[in-house]
Amino acid sequence: MEKEQELKNESSSEQKLPLGIEETEDLVEQIQDLIDSDNQPAAVDLFSQLHPGDQGEVIEDLPVATQQGILTAIPPEEAAEILEHLEPKDIAKVSEGIEASVLSDILDEADSDVTADVIRQLPEEQALDVLGEMEEAVDIAPLLGYSDDSAGGRMVLEYIVVKNNSTTDDALDTLRLKSPDSEEVHTVYVINDEDQLVGELSIARLALARPRTLVKDIMDSDIIFVNSDTNQEECARVMEHHNLDQLPVVNEDRKLLGVILSKDIIDVIEEEATEDMYKLAGITGERLFGPLKNSIRNRFPWLSVNLITTFLAALVISIFESTIARVVTLAVFLPVVAGQGGIGGTQTLTLVIRSLALGEISKKGGFRLLNREIFLGLVHGLMLGIIVGLVAYFWKGNYMLGVVLGMAMIGNMVIAGLTGAGIPLLLTRFRIDPAVASAVVVTTCTDVLGFLLFLGLATALVSFLL
Amino acid sequence: MEKEQELKNESSSEQKLPLGIEETEDLVEQIQDLIDSDNQPAAVDLFSQLHPGDQGEVIEDLPVATQQGILTAIPPEEAAEILEHLEPKDIAKVSEGIEASVLSDILDEADSDVTADVIRQLPEEQALDVLGEMEEAVDIAPLLGYSDDSAGGRMVLEYIVVKNNSTTDDALDTLRLKSPDSEEVHTVYVINDEDQLVGELSIARLALARPRTLVKDIMDSDIIFVNSDTNQEECARVMEHHNLDQLPVVNEDRKLLGVILSKDIIDVIEEEATEDMYKLAGITGERLFGPLKNSIRNRFPWLSVNLITTFLAALVISIFESTIARVVTLAVFLPVVAGQGGIGGTQTLTLVIRSLALGEISKKGGFRLLNREIFLGLVHGLMLGIIVGLVAYFWKGNYMLGVVLGMAMIGNMVIAGLTGAGIPLLLTRFRIDPAVASAVVVTTCTDVLGFLLFLGLATALVSFLL
Repeated sequence: MEKEQELKNESSSEQKLPLGIEETEDLVEQIQDLIDSDNQPAAVDLFSQLHPGDQGEVIEDLPVATQQGILTAIPPEEAAEILEHLEPKDIAKVSEGIEASVLSDILDEADSDVTADVIRQLPEEQALDVLGEMEEAVDIAPLLGYSDDSAGGRMVLEYIVVKNNSTTDDALDTLRLKSPDSEEVHTVYVINDEDQLVGELSIARLALARPRTLVKDIMDSDIIFVNSDTNQEECARVMEHHNLDQLPVVNEDRKLLGVILSKDIIDVIEEEATEDMYKLAGITGERLFGPLKNSIRNRFPWLSVNLITTFLAALVISIFESTIARVVTLAVFLPVVAGQGGIGGTQTLTLVIRSLALGEISKKGGFRLLNREIFLGLVHGLMLGIIVGLVAYFWKGNYMLGVVLGMAMIGNMVIAGLTGAGIPLLLTRFRIDPAVASAVVVTTCTDVLGFLLFLGLATALVSFLL
Repeated sequence: MEKEQELKNESSSEQKLPLGIEETEDLVEQIQDLIDSDNQPAAVDLFSQLHPGDQGEVIEDLPVATQQGILTAIPPEEAAEILEHLEPKDIAKVSEGIEASVLSDILDEADSDVTADVIRQLPEEQALDVLGEMEEAVDIAPLLGYSDDSAGGRMVLEYIVVKNNSTTDDALDTLRLKSPDSEEVHTVYVINDEDQLVGELSIARLALARPRTLVKDIMDSDIIFVNSDTNQEECARVMEHHNLDQLPVVNEDRKLLGVILSKDIIDVIEEEATEDMYKLAGITGERLFGPLKNSIRNRFPWLSVNLITTFLAALVISIFESTIARVVTLAVFLPVVAGQGGIGGTQTLTLVIRSLALGEISKKGGFRLLNREIFLGLVHGLMLGIIVGLVAYFWKGNYMLGVVLGMAMIGNMVIAGLTGAGIPLLLTRFRIDPAVASAVVVTTCTDVLGFLLFLGLATALVSFLL
């Protein structure tokens, strides 16, 4: 009881930040303890006092049975808001155990994009049951055809439409009738007699217009929109580019199908950035505390591919075994040449891949970038080459060793620039996702060619090295 | 002329996507050609037909003189909208050449966060001149004290406030008076007699309320807000967490200072993701086609730090030179042990760093994660160790070589899991940004300890290797 009081106090205090992870863990424990001691009402009560965003975090970490108990005990509109904070996969897991009649009530209250996401993830039989019980089934059904990551999959149906030749009074009446969840609506969309999207109008402008003004006289007709099959990343790019709060989605006849909200696109941008980082490291699809089996299945292929490339490098060294047998010191400097090449290549690669993802590189720009990176590789190679050459000379007292190492370093840094920029640009040209495949190709090149340069030069000049 | 016609047509066509990079380059060329042939009106005309977002892209690539010519030739409100699509640094460069009287007119029309950004970047004298000429100087001045990346630096002043004991009619009148740029306003904030933020109210609800309803009776008093010094990343996290469109910013007395818009927070999320990726690769602050000098200054320190670590690895190999002299084949497998460790370490590291950035790891979770990654390292090590051991045995016909290599592989993959998870978690505990420093420490560990294990074992068992 005291804890509940504390929570209440906290919610009226100065700044409202999301629960810290420790606090979330504490709450999860408290709620589960209450459930375990058969005090479900107290558990639901404690849970209800949290903000919807925090409720999402807490419920995520509870066992499925508790999740279901809570979601069915609270009012459907509150349950719907929590769903909006969960990952579709998690929702599906929770939803599978909830009765169709209860689940349909909850989904009737949720944003249509969330509803469609959930139904898409349910087993087919349950999906049909739930749809059958839903009031909004007719509206939701067409959404099920769009893929998750398209404009159609991201849009919501909670928008208001008025005719272009209606008056502002009519429009306000429509708004009054159709807007139960009025918080979310800022913009009214305007259509013509063929139901085509022809303009938009902010609610503020509508509220402030003189009575009997025609909508078409005050609407903004210079609107930005996308088609339903536009990729979600492209939608994010458009909204960012044009500084939009909402983005209408139309079909091929320019009929309005739905609206994408900027708060939903924030998730898209965060997901895509995570995906690109994970692809570069070969851990696509990884989840922090997912089953170990999945982690192994995710990471091992990448480790295996890289194993082949390290054996390629080993093969190159093997070719020069007799040189190494004569000048063993060469083995000492193998990681220096390959390591610096790998680092330089990764620098260039990261820059190019992120810039490609943000749509900042044109064909002409790509060529310019390639030249720039090769030149940078040369400059860095010269600087590093002189340093490592001198270090090797003073350390091992062999000036030719310094020369060979320095020259290999220059060559390998140029290779790093060339491949770090060239490979992702080339893959993009062939429509292969550069984030997935580039890293392994670039490090293979810097390893294999680096060793080849270093040991090749050493073999050619071996008489000076002895 | 024909080209202009084409553009007009394009802007009424089906889908409105941002200009492609090639189209942007073409337009930049056309506009510059028109300027060069002394036909500024045609250049301005061509430019004016573009969407503000596209105008931002195009103007970015024009020479400063042309930028200034265009920005001063178009109406101030259009120029203001373009500024919102440019980077603050670029705006400052353009602004420096524009007369204070013209620039102040433009900035009076811009969102207050953009205005403050621009003024912060101007040379002090010009900043004072411009502020002196601005109508909104009194409003903007307090913003200048906030840092760029805080809630205070990101908030706008374009919001509407009403008293909690006023009626909805009064509130609508206030809206009518104070909202010149009504598109952007969706929410009215409610304050009490002490000017403290006590609630919020959507314009839709306001427009639909019965006349003479008291604002406090229909407002939502359960509001989320942040302080002005909250970091922008934290603000993004709050808005995402609570699915917010707007986030009010208050001072320590809970007085409303401004509002952060979700469309502005999209930039923050994209920037922060880019920053984390760049930090991991050691290219913080890099710009695609920035001056070469800057790129070298950005990247070379990282290359130098890594040089030290590769020399550490070289030092380890050097200790075992006599073993390698006896069994030269050992040199062949050096990149296999180190390479796989590096890859495995990077996988773990990327997962942990991104999860830390997204705020998904608690203290308890960190410990669990560390154990999990060490165990995964062991599993991967066993799988890889058996493979490489067999390959080495069949390739070089020496079973003990296979055993030594396999055992080193197992050990190094465990080290990869331990350091890949442990180092970023440890750095976070000491409040050091894990993205900057982790990568170099992890690869140093997998290189140095990998070689130490492999060559150490080989030395101990050297009699079996001959």
